[in-house]
Amino acid sequence: MVTELGESKLRQSDMTISDMIDKNVVLRADDAAIICGDVRWSFGDYAEEVDRLAGGLASLGLRKEDRIAVVAFNCPEYFQIYGAAARMGAIVIPVNWRLKPEEIQFILEDSSPKALIADPEFVEGLRDAADLRNIERRLTIGKGTAEFSPIDEVSGIDVSTGTVGVDDEDPLVIIYTAAVGGRPRGAVITHGNLVAANLQAIATLPIQSDSAYLNLAPLYHIGGLVMSLSVMHAGGRNVLIKKFNPKDAAELIEREKITIIETFPPMLSSILDEASLSGQKLSSLKIGTGLDQTNTIQRFQETTGATFWVCFGQTETMSFCTLSPFNECPGSSGREGLLARLRIVDDYDRDVPAGQAGEILVKGPIVFQGYWQMEEETAYTFRGGWHHTGDVGRLDEDGYLWYVKRKAEKELIKPGGENVYPSEVEKSLLEHPEVIGACVFGIPDEQWGEAIKAVCVRKAGSSLKPEELIEFVANRIARYKKPKYLTFVNALPRGENGEIERETVKTEYGLEI
Amino acid sequence: MVTELGESKLRQSDMTISDMIDKNVVLRADDAAIICGDVRWSFGDYAEEVDRLAGGLASLGLRKEDRIAVVAFNCPEYFQIYGAAARMGAIVIPVNWRLKPEEIQFILEDSSPKALIADPEFVEGLRDAADLRNIERRLTIGKGTAEFSPIDEVSGIDVSTGTVGVDDEDPLVIIYTAAVGGRPRGAVITHGNLVAANLQAIATLPIQSDSAYLNLAPLYHIGGLVMSLSVMHAGGRNVLIKKFNPKDAAELIEREKITIIETFPPMLSSILDEASLSGQKLSSLKIGTGLDQTNTIQRFQETTGATFWVCFGQTETMSFCTLSPFNECPGSSGREGLLARLRIVDDYDRDVPAGQAGEILVKGPIVFQGYWQMEEETAYTFRGGWHHTGDVGRLDEDGYLWYVKRKAEKELIKPGGENVYPSEVEKSLLEHPEVIGACVFGIPDEQWGEAIKAVCVRKAGSSLKPEELIEFVANRIARYKKPKYLTFVNALPRGENGEIERETVKTEYGLEI
Repeated sequence: MVTELGESKLRQSDMTISDMIDKNVVLRADDAAIICGDVRWSFGDYAEEVDRLAGGLASLGLRKEDRIAVVAFNCPEYFQIYGAAARMGAIVIPVNWRLKPEEIQFILEDSSPKALIADPEFVEGLRDAADLRNIERRLTIGKGTAEFSPIDEVSGIDVSTGTVGVDDEDPLVIIYTAAVGGRPRGAVITHGNLVAANLQAIATLPIQSDSAYLNLAPLYHIGGLVMSLSVMHAGGRNVLIKKFNPKDAAELIEREKITIIETFPPMLSSILDEASLSGQKLSSLKIGTGLDQTNTIQRFQETTGATFWVCFGQTETMSFCTLSPFNECPGSSGREGLLARLRIVDDYDRDVPAGQAGEILVKGPIVFQGYWQMEEETAYTFRGGWHHTGDVGRLDEDGYLWYVKRKAEKELIKPGGENVYPSEVEKSLLEHPEVIGACVFGIPDEQWGEAIKAVCVRKAGSSLKPEELIEFVANRIARYKKPKYLTFVNALPRGENGEIERETVKTEYGLEI
Repeated sequence: MVTELGESKLRQSDMTISDMIDKNVVLRADDAAIICGDVRWSFGDYAEEVDRLAGGLASLGLRKEDRIAVVAFNCPEYFQIYGAAARMGAIVIPVNWRLKPEEIQFILEDSSPKALIADPEFVEGLRDAADLRNIERRLTIGKGTAEFSPIDEVSGIDVSTGTVGVDDEDPLVIIYTAAVGGRPRGAVITHGNLVAANLQAIATLPIQSDSAYLNLAPLYHIGGLVMSLSVMHAGGRNVLIKKFNPKDAAELIEREKITIIETFPPMLSSILDEASLSGQKLSSLKIGTGLDQTNTIQRFQETTGATFWVCFGQTETMSFCTLSPFNECPGSSGREGLLARLRIVDDYDRDVPAGQAGEILVKGPIVFQGYWQMEEETAYTFRGGWHHTGDVGRLDEDGYLWYVKRKAEKELIKPGGENVYPSEVEKSLLEHPEVIGACVFGIPDEQWGEAIKAVCVRKAGSSLKPEELIEFVANRIARYKKPKYLTFVNALPRGENGEIERETVKTEYGLEI
């Protein structure tokens, strides 16, 4: 169809975070947007601050697709940086300041930012963590140092060059997720992903222009980012707290008439303890979300009268694949959201029946675009057009998701630095008409670091030889993916649901070459 | 960025109307989806009916991108056809049965459907309207004839082939809009457009799983289609009425506890009259939308206690560019929606100040993909990345849109069948350093049907000749776009806001060659 419309298909069907900022200026320039201590930015103020910084960053040479790493507490400037990047088509790398120096170093090397913006208290630590000479522009939120200039000084230098053509398929953020296969991976998130997440949250919770969100979750986590932007998209206000403490949180909820919070243990119970001590009812609250224990959620709902929305999600899905009121099905992670589709599959991507555990797959506009400069991992994660979360769960008859566990992370085999996924090799082995079972895993190998081992079951009466089967596989997939070692056994150990017990196979045959 | 992720960018970020159907089966298979007279389909029933028809249509040879024309009243089968097309990647051409035979004939020729599905009472009229031999498959909703087989007979023949890979960038519907430049244009609408429209309506009104929508607006109009699908996406129920009459409408609102209606004059006032006569309060209603007179809207709100949401939109924008409660700003068309951006511009796409009238431009995921097989018109409509609505309005200081009028539709000039837009020629004329004013329009021409005429103003003291200026333009844009006739005048008539009074120029100089 695209071909029939030809080159006329411009990007008129798009909406960016920059559009969202402009929308609020048109609809409610004077309403409160961001509140933090004495700072109170209206939507008009916010747009001005964004444009000043975008102009400043442009004058420092930053351009579309350049990365801007940020190491900071929640603060108005964090929003300003996201907004400026949205204007410029630049990409924010929000770094978790709790990470170890070597982890931060990895992220800074992998994302190769052109600018680094840090809170003054992280400046010293960053010098240890990273070779700062590789980062062209170093800025700080507040007082400058020899190596870090204050962002206030650069802002507004050249406003005119700050805004360039950006559309909803352009990335705005890369958030690094937990290490899989030995290294953290940068999840590339577009404007369109965030706008989709906003609409889903606004429509579901719902969020309105009189909503007030207390930013307890950090702005470098997807959960905090999506809730902040959702409330901003709906025209509500974001109230910030630099570093979490329960006393300030409870006081702010009362004073700023907060309607929405998102928390992760032990935030919520400590806020409830504090409120109980000081006799605060927190009755402005309407919505809680995030993660917590059943008894804390119940206590939250009883104390405040608000609804706690349970969810399942990850950075790769803009947080919310599922989102349901806790009371609908206590203990579950809720049901799929308006812009998410879920499947539960076995190791070969076959759907499993309701009630049975398997990997959780997700599809929808809330799914990220891939891992930064990791084409093969991205393709593998997205095989069949669905994002493979690496999390295990089951869906009950009513569509509620019950989280089980994180999938074994050592699944990936790396012979000679290449990435080989066991299920692809197993699938290929099973295509041989005489093979009825296969289990593939990695074993230590002096030459290649790791080698591929396959344990297979032949049909009764078959005289298939290991080297024949290895050659069969080598003709079907890349040669480096063929098993180096292959053993035939009479049967593979299987669990109650018929699934091969991978760990048992590894223990039994892992070292027998 | 796409290049960096390379081929790994699959369509995991997508959501289709087919996904929406599946979602409802997972979340609420037994809940009521579609109600019409004695027919009550649950979401499970609906999905089954959709799959049966998709299988049947596939068995008749229909494939992805094939068009299916529909001439029908609102009925459950209309939903079944939309759903089956969504499954197959086929494209529905919903035909307004009020059109004249020659208009229907044009649509059937232009869209070249492989199948035509009609209500029995339109079968006779269609024989007059169209050469049916060109349409391979002719089906009817109900009793068959020699030329039309009942859809029930084909349904379910081969379910397995009914579902193919479809993503949100695939078209699902082409709706023909009013004739511009002498012919109706088919607005191509994708799954993604409709999902965006659904989310915007769900988030704004809001719509929930207990919402009930009375389908008064026809399913061949974008308004009726978007409201129906929005309610379905949220898990609510659609209650159908075959042909509108106020008595049945009022009774159904009471009996089925309808919460949402969408009406166009004179529906709403006639329903209110009917309810008043029979003492019905229509108190289940929460939301009204569509278009109507101020006094009717006020009467509706007073009678029912519901909120009427005013809007501006067109087929090309999934109906809702703006959507606001009437009481917020009576008389206006409301403010831009969560997934729409609006601009008001002059004839040269320059933004005009608040309060000044100009053409309404729209951008956002709710904007259609272009006109069916009209590349040039599509490119022109989407120039600068914004959809040019052809409607004139003004935005006030608070962002409310005030509708003024439809733009003069004769703007397009067609010399020898080519399309020439005056503003492009004017822009080119004004690029000459000695030209300070230009107005371009079409005049009758024996040879070419229409010819391009330009009336221009030179700088004081300039001795520029008409043929020199014509040649200047011919070197900058396609030669067929150069004016055939060009006259210099001392001044062009301008209105209070400085805009050239195009109609006055045409009257004064239109026939003076």
